[in-house]
Amino acid sequence: MTMSLITPGLKPVGPPAVLGRGRDLVEPELRAAVAQLHPRLALMGGYAYGWYEADGTPTGGGGGGKMLRSALVLLSAELVGNPPEAAVPGAVAVELLHVFSLIHDDIMDGDEERRHRPTVWKAFGTGRAILAGDALFALAVRAVAQAPSGAWPAVRLITDTALQLCQGQAQDLAFEQRPWTGPGAVGGAEYRAMAADKTGALISCALAIGAVLESAPATAVETLAGVGHRFGLAFQIVDDILAGQGDPALTGKPVLNDLRGNKKSYPILAALSSPGRAGTHLRTVIAAADRLDDDELARLGELVAEAGGYRKAVREAHRQIDVGLKALSRGRFNARAVNELQDLASFVLDRSV
Amino acid sequence: MTMSLITPGLKPVGPPAVLGRGRDLVEPELRAAVAQLHPRLALMGGYAYGWYEADGTPTGGGGGGKMLRSALVLLSAELVGNPPEAAVPGAVAVELLHVFSLIHDDIMDGDEERRHRPTVWKAFGTGRAILAGDALFALAVRAVAQAPSGAWPAVRLITDTALQLCQGQAQDLAFEQRPWTGPGAVGGAEYRAMAADKTGALISCALAIGAVLESAPATAVETLAGVGHRFGLAFQIVDDILAGQGDPALTGKPVLNDLRGNKKSYPILAALSSPGRAGTHLRTVIAAADRLDDDELARLGELVAEAGGYRKAVREAHRQIDVGLKALSRGRFNARAVNELQDLASFVLDRSV
Repeated sequence: MTMSLITPGLKPVGPPAVLGRGRDLVEPELRAAVAQLHPRLALMGGYAYGWYEADGTPTGGGGGGKMLRSALVLLSAELVGNPPEAAVPGAVAVELLHVFSLIHDDIMDGDEERRHRPTVWKAFGTGRAILAGDALFALAVRAVAQAPSGAWPAVRLITDTALQLCQGQAQDLAFEQRPWTGPGAVGGAEYRAMAADKTGALISCALAIGAVLESAPATAVETLAGVGHRFGLAFQIVDDILAGQGDPALTGKPVLNDLRGNKKSYPILAALSSPGRAGTHLRTVIAAADRLDDDELARLGELVAEAGGYRKAVREAHRQIDVGLKALSRGRFNARAVNELQDLASFVLDRSV
Repeated sequence: MTMSLITPGLKPVGPPAVLGRGRDLVEPELRAAVAQLHPRLALMGGYAYGWYEADGTPTGGGGGGKMLRSALVLLSAELVGNPPEAAVPGAVAVELLHVFSLIHDDIMDGDEERRHRPTVWKAFGTGRAILAGDALFALAVRAVAQAPSGAWPAVRLITDTALQLCQGQAQDLAFEQRPWTGPGAVGGAEYRAMAADKTGALISCALAIGAVLESAPATAVETLAGVGHRFGLAFQIVDDILAGQGDPALTGKPVLNDLRGNKKSYPILAALSSPGRAGTHLRTVIAAADRLDDDELARLGELVAEAGGYRKAVREAHRQIDVGLKALSRGRFNARAVNELQDLASFVLDRSV
């Protein structure tokens, strides 16, 4: 994905340097952690990270994610004025927790593809994918439990974060059984609370754990955790938007899946709360969404756009990032690291990471 | 199950008092931990512990397990001369880890019943069962991460144990793709290594973590961990035997499932290594086990008995317990607690816990 989807007209910039630093520092440790597993589990883990094909052939490293969360952990240490090296176990833990939750969520959501490859359960079977996720979860806690300095609060943070991921996913699944409109409908505040657990918790953990591992003052850690929660909410909204209109060739397809699966995503909820004609029309039609054919669903996807669903979602994502950065500017953080974090946030808002 | 299956002729005795102490001390804390979860996750957790029916109706408490592992944790503290109270977070963690692994293993193994009720995935769906297991896993680590004293080594122990459970389960699944006989067959030493991870690790953790939480000397902890590994192997063999001949009305049925599913269980492996006529016959027939009809499979089950598979398994379970108790007698452990542990082991060897 090379063009800017979230801020049309913005000229594309290269990935911020901190992504490269994160990969260079963290990936070797991450690979070493995964290599400790039973060979079958190590293969599944390596496949999920994009290091191997399903048959064990190395991909050459190009298939992996950008390790956004590792970059956030390194910045977390740098923001409180420390070199990033001591934060590496935290970054390893966060990356492990991230992929653990992706592997399990893909099973729960029945998703068959991720980054244009079969998901782990699709490639290796459900049972083995469950086990691979479990093993990565255990490795995540171990990564910080074995860290030398100040690791005790980091272990608590990783554990609390894992629990929040589960709570958020439980709430997301529970939302699927609730209506789009009328009594029992999912409101914006509820969406934000769910996203705060499901996505915000891990981004918050990433932006705090580097400081925690450096034994930074509690106020600094709290500020970073709060900023991370806002960034996490923004990133979740970006995900929701890209699912809805990420690939022009598929415009509207995934949002139709969200509609069909009763998946409460931000653009749809924002469009539903719109007072205008398109919003009214949307509210009337969506009550019957599970009985509509593909053409009617496509029309529903257009109504989400007409009612300003995407526009509002973009605005909300930007607002969360801005409020977060403002909170950061009031603390005593390393200026260079603040700038890098700002660049990273813009990069995520303008691309799919 | 009221008669003694493992030691025929032994008169049945009541459950050792430590089981009641374990339940009284640990269950309230365990319930409080599970109650922190999202209501849907708490219901699934409570169902797995036998506290509720699937619709949330309380069972009256009669449906739960005997909380064997909690009793072992309390004894672990008492063996090193301490009151059991400080060990309770360790017991909660071990019980949570135990049920996490049961919920996920039942999905992987496709088991539809446990304790005469539908398994969690069967009652609530696979996706939700995965999530419930994940949440219990996170709670397990948190139970010790929040404990006040000496909890750091306990967190490492819980995390290492969780990883061993995953490794053991991976190996057990890998065994299913290997033959019963000939090159690549699973040998007794390999079975023991798998069972040491899959079952031994958690029992070893239970028998060590109480002492760890009381900051007992490293030599005492090591002895207890080693004894626990032997007990765990013995308990796994007992499980394998009871699966094979637990209910007289179903004699042979589960062992047939093991044969059909290529599940390497101790009685079958022991029978296969038998030099006699029945062993030879068994080795000849089993190579074709996946193509046999039910009558032929039933004959195979009888051959396992004729070749001494169950007898050898019983002997091995007793041997592991005896060696463990002997190691304990060489250390300086509280004599009353040693006696209670001995009673508990006899109780497990003679019943299904």
